[in-house]
Amino acid sequence: MTTPQTVLLDLEGTLYTRDGVIDGAAEAVRRLRADGHVLRFLTNTDSQGTADLHAALVARGLEVPAQELFTPVVAASVALADDPGARVLVLGTAAVTAELAARLTVVGPGEEPTHVVVGDVRHSLTYDLLDGAFAALHGGARLVALQKGRFFLSGGVAHLDTGAVVAALEHAAAVEALVVGKPSTDFVRLALRSAPGSMDPGRTWVVGDDASTDVAMGLAFGARTVQVRTGKFALQSGDPSLPRAGAVVDSVADLPELMRSEAP
Amino acid sequence: MTTPQTVLLDLEGTLYTRDGVIDGAAEAVRRLRADGHVLRFLTNTDSQGTADLHAALVARGLEVPAQELFTPVVAASVALADDPGARVLVLGTAAVTAELAARLTVVGPGEEPTHVVVGDVRHSLTYDLLDGAFAALHGGARLVALQKGRFFLSGGVAHLDTGAVVAALEHAAAVEALVVGKPSTDFVRLALRSAPGSMDPGRTWVVGDDASTDVAMGLAFGARTVQVRTGKFALQSGDPSLPRAGAVVDSVADLPELMRSEAP
Repeated sequence: MTTPQTVLLDLEGTLYTRDGVIDGAAEAVRRLRADGHVLRFLTNTDSQGTADLHAALVARGLEVPAQELFTPVVAASVALADDPGARVLVLGTAAVTAELAARLTVVGPGEEPTHVVVGDVRHSLTYDLLDGAFAALHGGARLVALQKGRFFLSGGVAHLDTGAVVAALEHAAAVEALVVGKPSTDFVRLALRSAPGSMDPGRTWVVGDDASTDVAMGLAFGARTVQVRTGKFALQSGDPSLPRAGAVVDSVADLPELMRSEAP
Repeated sequence: MTTPQTVLLDLEGTLYTRDGVIDGAAEAVRRLRADGHVLRFLTNTDSQGTADLHAALVARGLEVPAQELFTPVVAASVALADDPGARVLVLGTAAVTAELAARLTVVGPGEEPTHVVVGDVRHSLTYDLLDGAFAALHGGARLVALQKGRFFLSGGVAHLDTGAVVAALEHAAAVEALVVGKPSTDFVRLALRSAPGSMDPGRTWVVGDDASTDVAMGLAFGARTVQVRTGKFALQSGDPSLPRAGAVVDSVADLPELMRSEAP
């Protein structure tokens, strides 16, 4: 039995890839739990609801309780839960809007929102949508970004991501968004707030395959960082400008042993 | 007869307001011309074509030759005229796109543009439009912004302006736009390049009612600046954070005398 710590685990590229679940990943999750660690599974997905994401994890054979799945939508809910007067305008998919509506008071653009939450609007972007969000921000509402990614890859082709819409609103309203997705350290803080463990960065592990998001975020927070050699690792290994994790392991299967050997 | 200089004159608020042409403005323009100065009339309008803007000026009784009207669309043309291989993707109104097509090679998003020019897209904004522009920029095209305003007022209500779309593309593609409208000093440089006069900032006058655009731009360029007490002046006079012009006059009617008395 090691000293319990909080482990923030990336999903895609770390626990599974398009080819399937990483060898030993399910067993590693079981061992981390058996060692008493608090687990949170972090993803930057800002288009799907948490229930759909959770169903997909279970279908892959990964034992992840729904309440351990920490998405930007959950993070936004945690961030706004402190404010019982929050009235939220959502720019996002139907699934994300429905999930936020189940947790918070969601209103339309004319109904004087206190917060504007921006996620994936690929299928609904219009000038009027942006202008309505701008009007709320200009009137004093706070801007919350589910993530601020520049672009995503689909079939090897780069496409404009949610961050562009966030940047548009930041410019128009002269505000800075609270970013509740990777690589924002606010995402880590909110994940830790949602967990029963310690808020101490030195007792927090951030584990993922992506140096530009997972590792960068963990380092910025002061957490212990582990990069796995699965997922995006090979794509990034030639880039010396990317941050270096505190430890690098072949796969998440090696994580429980690493944590036992490096227990503080 | 004074020593010829270049005078960059703002239009709305300086030569006319919604109430009509400023008293003495037409005569002032005639006197500046009689004094041998080179004139350019600057506006930030990024939705109308130059021909329509010019027709509106003539209808107001202002003697402004079309070639002295300097808009962000003209500025973009001047900026890109040096590059005979320029292939331009336009995000803008039909009028602006047609005017640029008359001066430059305009192509579609899939046709490997070398430049993306962004203007008013209030009536055409979609994710696919933004994503097509992003793809061009991601592929190496240069971003040109007709202006980068945060918001405009219509009937007293603030609405999201072109700058938001520019900021979205800058974020997604990690580039900085060449801004060819106020308050960018590149707009002044391009206006001077289009004129037969001197490029010397000390022999350039920037005249307008708006401290945040006209005056700020003139000061940043090192030009002589004159703010008129018409147009937006009263709205801004209580704001100590705004830059101060080298001279302030009641209206543009006082400009010819000021220039005679301050001739270098």
